[in-house]
Amino acid sequence: MRGEFQQYMAARRQQVEAALDRYTAGLDAPSRLVEAMRYSLLAGGKRLRPILTIAASELFGLEAADVMPGACALEMIHTYSLIHDDLPCMDDDDLRRGRPTCHKVYGEAMAVLAGDALLTQAFALMAEQAAVPRVGPARAVRAAAELAHAAGAEGMVGGQVEDLAWEGRQADEPQLRRIHSLKTGALFRAAVRMGGILAGAGEEDLDRLGRYATHFGLAFQIWDDVLDVTGDAALTGKGVGRDARLDKSTYVTLHGVEGARERAYQAVRLALEELEPFGGAGWVLRALAESVVDRVA
Amino acid sequence: MRGEFQQYMAARRQQVEAALDRYTAGLDAPSRLVEAMRYSLLAGGKRLRPILTIAASELFGLEAADVMPGACALEMIHTYSLIHDDLPCMDDDDLRRGRPTCHKVYGEAMAVLAGDALLTQAFALMAEQAAVPRVGPARAVRAAAELAHAAGAEGMVGGQVEDLAWEGRQADEPQLRRIHSLKTGALFRAAVRMGGILAGAGEEDLDRLGRYATHFGLAFQIWDDVLDVTGDAALTGKGVGRDARLDKSTYVTLHGVEGARERAYQAVRLALEELEPFGGAGWVLRALAESVVDRVA
Repeated sequence: MRGEFQQYMAARRQQVEAALDRYTAGLDAPSRLVEAMRYSLLAGGKRLRPILTIAASELFGLEAADVMPGACALEMIHTYSLIHDDLPCMDDDDLRRGRPTCHKVYGEAMAVLAGDALLTQAFALMAEQAAVPRVGPARAVRAAAELAHAAGAEGMVGGQVEDLAWEGRQADEPQLRRIHSLKTGALFRAAVRMGGILAGAGEEDLDRLGRYATHFGLAFQIWDDVLDVTGDAALTGKGVGRDARLDKSTYVTLHGVEGARERAYQAVRLALEELEPFGGAGWVLRALAESVVDRVA
Repeated sequence: MRGEFQQYMAARRQQVEAALDRYTAGLDAPSRLVEAMRYSLLAGGKRLRPILTIAASELFGLEAADVMPGACALEMIHTYSLIHDDLPCMDDDDLRRGRPTCHKVYGEAMAVLAGDALLTQAFALMAEQAAVPRVGPARAVRAAAELAHAAGAEGMVGGQVEDLAWEGRQADEPQLRRIHSLKTGALFRAAVRMGGILAGAGEEDLDRLGRYATHFGLAFQIWDDVLDVTGDAALTGKGVGRDARLDKSTYVTLHGVEGARERAYQAVRLALEELEPFGGAGWVLRALAESVVDRVA
């Protein structure tokens, strides 16, 4: 099963990378802008969000190609958020995925604009998604609404605002959970739910996918906090101990490494429970959730 | 006619302001973020882009309420672009519409995020646009594609990149025209064409509306350059002579004030020609084009 999952991930990652390349290579735009967009977009990464969309859509009979525009829209939004979060006026990070951040290479103005362009391009892809015959405009519109709400003021952007507001102060567990539910959880929820929406899943299944994604996102975030303390900078591609230096609350400062790990495992268990009604067909989403607390980067 | 037009504009502006207020007042998001978004969004302004969308849609039998989400999406994108363009790493402006710019009031991080949130919210509105019975998902998707392409790397964002690249160097007329066609023209074209698309106009009429908007945008930009030299800072809300200090090419540096004025009038004449087939029904778009070279701010 493990080998099968790794093959699945490698294949989907390759499809996503090829599509991201295709969706940006032909842009009729200033070459330095396109270069900056692609520098960050094609910098590797696990492509978790697009693969979650694909895997969820496969549960309801679609194939990767049917949801590729929406899947890549998610990755563009994730990438733009990293570019803007790394800016000197925000988290002021020099390294991302082991390479200099976008503004370090292209300058601040270009980094702001490359982020803006990726965010905008994501919604151009959502419009393309409507042209896929097995999807159609009505489902594409609903998925676009889901994405916009998850990515905007009521979701990811709002989460980043709250995160900045808590810097240097100690958030408690409910506050920390709320910040992460918005900053990283909302996009995971949108990723999984969009797969279902594009495939025409029923409301009950969409609710189930949403709860799965909420637990998934929580496990992911807790594990990130653990890796910040225990991780290998060469693997994570960012400085270890960064959260502590920023005097930020994390699941590790609240519960210790072992307590945080236990909470991550518990979140994965809750995620897996939501998949039970899908039976064997849910094996990819199951393996994805398990892989979150298995990773070293 | 002039009185009738002014009444029309005042009524539409009021409808747009009320909708912008409604679309942002209830956001479930950090209050300071919503405040920063609304500070820039509700700062007055002519609301030209949304009114162009409304006027174009009225030509084909729709009413303002039918296209209000799309019209307000345009204004949100226009506003986000002003917030980001004003940032220290871009044009570094302290004043906009006679008030301190967003980052001067809320700080740079919040200004970046307020812009991101407005851009994202614009596409949430495009999804809402699909729910309007007289529009429907297929037309809303096409309008959203038009908006995304006009606003992104191939349009407005690309234009800002080119504009920054030419700072301190003297662009010639074709280069200047290209910059402005992207930086401001693309969104005007999208505004007018979206009105037609949402109302189900035929391809020939959409092409005509696109050409009208191209001439409109050119006249608008030339007149801005004229106002930068001859304008009253108290009315324009920004420093006079700013372009010259930045050593930027403008239509005035290329052709002098009188030569620039003559080119603006010529662009308006070309815009009006495109409206001839619409007869009397085109009166609002006609008056809008004429008003561009009549304004003092």
